Amino acid sequence: MSVEFTDVEAAAQRINGLVHATPVMRSVLIDTELGFELHFKCEQLQKTGSFKARGACNAVALLADQTRAVATHSSGNHGAALAYAAKRRQLPASVVMPSNAPNCKKIAVAAYGASIYECEPNLTAREAGLAELLEQAGTAAVPPYDHPHIIAGQGTTALELLQQCEQPLDTLLLPVGGGGLLAGGAIAARHLNPSIEIIGCEPAGADDAKRSFDSGQRITQQSPNTMADGLRAVLGVHNFALIRSHVDDILTVSETAIVEAMAMVYSRMKQVIEPSAAVSLAVAMQYRQRFAGKSVGLVLSGGNIDLDKLPWS
Amino acid sequence: MSVEFTDVEAAAQRINGLVHATPVMRSVLIDTELGFELHFKCEQLQKTGSFKARGACNAVALLADQTRAVATHSSGNHGAALAYAAKRRQLPASVVMPSNAPNCKKIAVAAYGASIYECEPNLTAREAGLAELLEQAGTAAVPPYDHPHIIAGQGTTALELLQQCEQPLDTLLLPVGGGGLLAGGAIAARHLNPSIEIIGCEPAGADDAKRSFDSGQRITQQSPNTMADGLRAVLGVHNFALIRSHVDDILTVSETAIVEAMAMVYSRMKQVIEPSAAVSLAVAMQYRQRFAGKSVGLVLSGGNIDLDKLPWS
Repeated sequence: MSVEFTDVEAAAQRINGLVHATPVMRSVLIDTELGFELHFKCEQLQKTGSFKARGACNAVALLADQTRAVATHSSGNHGAALAYAAKRRQLPASVVMPSNAPNCKKIAVAAYGASIYECEPNLTAREAGLAELLEQAGTAAVPPYDHPHIIAGQGTTALELLQQCEQPLDTLLLPVGGGGLLAGGAIAARHLNPSIEIIGCEPAGADDAKRSFDSGQRITQQSPNTMADGLRAVLGVHNFALIRSHVDDILTVSETAIVEAMAMVYSRMKQVIEPSAAVSLAVAMQYRQRFAGKSVGLVLSGGNIDLDKLPWS
Repeated sequence: MSVEFTDVEAAAQRINGLVHATPVMRSVLIDTELGFELHFKCEQLQKTGSFKARGACNAVALLADQTRAVATHSSGNHGAALAYAAKRRQLPASVVMPSNAPNCKKIAVAAYGASIYECEPNLTAREAGLAELLEQAGTAAVPPYDHPHIIAGQGTTALELLQQCEQPLDTLLLPVGGGGLLAGGAIAARHLNPSIEIIGCEPAGADDAKRSFDSGQRITQQSPNTMADGLRAVLGVHNFALIRSHVDDILTVSETAIVEAMAMVYSRMKQVIEPSAAVSLAVAMQYRQRFAGKSVGLVLSGGNIDLDKLPWS
C-alpha cells in the first residue's frame, strides 16, 4: 500500500475542520540575515501544538466502524494528537510513552483524556508496551509515522504551505525523524511543483535517515543523542521507500546549530518552538550558501517544550 | 492640545505601510479555562516587536521638515520604535536608556542604527540626559508617551483590534505604564463602541496610574518594583487627562500573576511575550468572575525579552 498525491488531497478534505489551516509567517530580519526568502509554516500553532494532529485525525477517521479504542507509542506529540483525534471520535486512547519524554508532552496527552503507559526510552520497549495494549479486543493501533494514513495526513502540511505561498518555492526543508512529514510532504510538494528541491533535515545525533538515504539501506539507530526529542524515532519502512523516491537530499546539523536556530525563532519571530521544529531552520542557516537568492519553505513542526528547560536557560 | 478619534484615524492612515496590521489570535484552551472569550491583539509581532512602532511612526511623520535628528528617553521599546521610524525617514536617532533596560532592547535600539546614552534608572536622569541631546540644533524630541501624536499612534492598536473582531467586544483590557496605549486605545474604542468597558491593567508594584485614577490626582511614583520593565514609567500628563475621561477602571496584579499569565501565553499560544505584555491577561485571570461569559479584547503589547532571563528559568 503506497501513498499517492490523491491520498494527501483526500486527507486534507477529511481533516478539514478538525485541524487549523496554520499561517505562513515571514521575517524580514531573518531573510536579510540569511540572504534568501524563508516561508515558515507554523505548525506550532496547530491543534495539540504540532503537525501530528493532521496524521492522527486522518488515521482515526479511517478506522473501521467496530473500533472501540485506540493505542499508540509516542515520544509525545503523536500521543497528544491521537488523544485529540480519538476524543473527537469519542474513543478512549492509550499511549505508551518513553520515560524521557518532556513533561509538557505527558501533561498534554493526559489533558486530552488519554491513558499513559510509561516505558524505557527505546523502540523495543515502546513496541512491546503497545503490543500489550493491543491484546484488548476492539483496540486499533494508530502508529506514529510508519503508516500510509499517517503519511498522507502529515503530507497536508506541505500541501497547504505550497498553496499558501504566492510564488512557487525553489526548496522545501522538512525535518525527518520517523519520516511521516518528510515522506508525505515530499509526495505533495513533488506533485504540485515537479522541479522543487526537497531536503530532509536531521540532527547529526540521530542521523539514521541520512545514513539510510546515502547507503540505500534502512539503518535502525539504537541510541539517538539529540535534544530534538521529536526526531529520535527510527525511520519507518514505508517512509524510507517514499523518501528514496521523492526526496533530493538529507542534511544534518549539530546541536549548537539547533539552539541557534531556536533562539532566532524566539527572538525574531516571537514564536515558541520545540528543538525538533528548529532543525529545518538550522539547515537553512548552516548551509546558507546553497540557498542564496532562493525562495525556501520550511515547517516549524511543533511548539511543545518544557519552558523551564530551554537550552539557553 | 487634546486627542480625538479623528486623530487616531488619521494616524492609522499615516502609518499604514510602515507598521504591520498584526493578527488577532484566539485560544480555545484559554477561553475554556477562564470561562470567557479572549481576543489577543498580537503586537509582539509588530515591527520592532512592540506596539510602540505605531506611535513613533506617527510622531516622526508629523515632525517639521527642518528636523535634522530625533532623540528620546526610553526603557527600550520606544527607543527601538523611534530608531526604526527615524531610519525610515533617514534621520539619525539618539536614545537615553536606563542602565537596567533589558539587553535585547539595547541591542535592538543599536541594530536599528540609533546611538545609545545610558543613564541611572529614574525619570530625572532620563529627562536630564534627553535635555542634553536636545541642545544640538535641529534635534527634535519624540517623547515615549506624553504627547498627542504618540497617543494617537498607539490608539491605532485598539482601532485595528475592534475592526478585526467580528462581534463587538464587551471589555477591552489595556496595559498602562506611561499611558499612551491606554489613552489612545480608550479614545478609539469609546468612539467605535460607546458601551464598551475599558480597563487599564497595571502591576501592583508600579501602581501610579491606579492611585492617580482613584484619587483624581496624578501621582508620580519614584521606585517602581516590577518585572514588567515596559510599565515602570510615570503616567503622563496628557495621558492622565484622557484616561480620566475615557477609562472605566484600573486593576492591578501581582508579580506572580504576571508570571502565570506569561507562562500561559508561552505554553498555550506558543507566543513569546515580555512581562508587560502579560499584565492584561493577568488581570483577566485574577478577576475572572468579573468577565464571566463576556467577550474580552486585550493587547499583547510586545515580545522583547532576554531569553536567558525568563521568570521561570
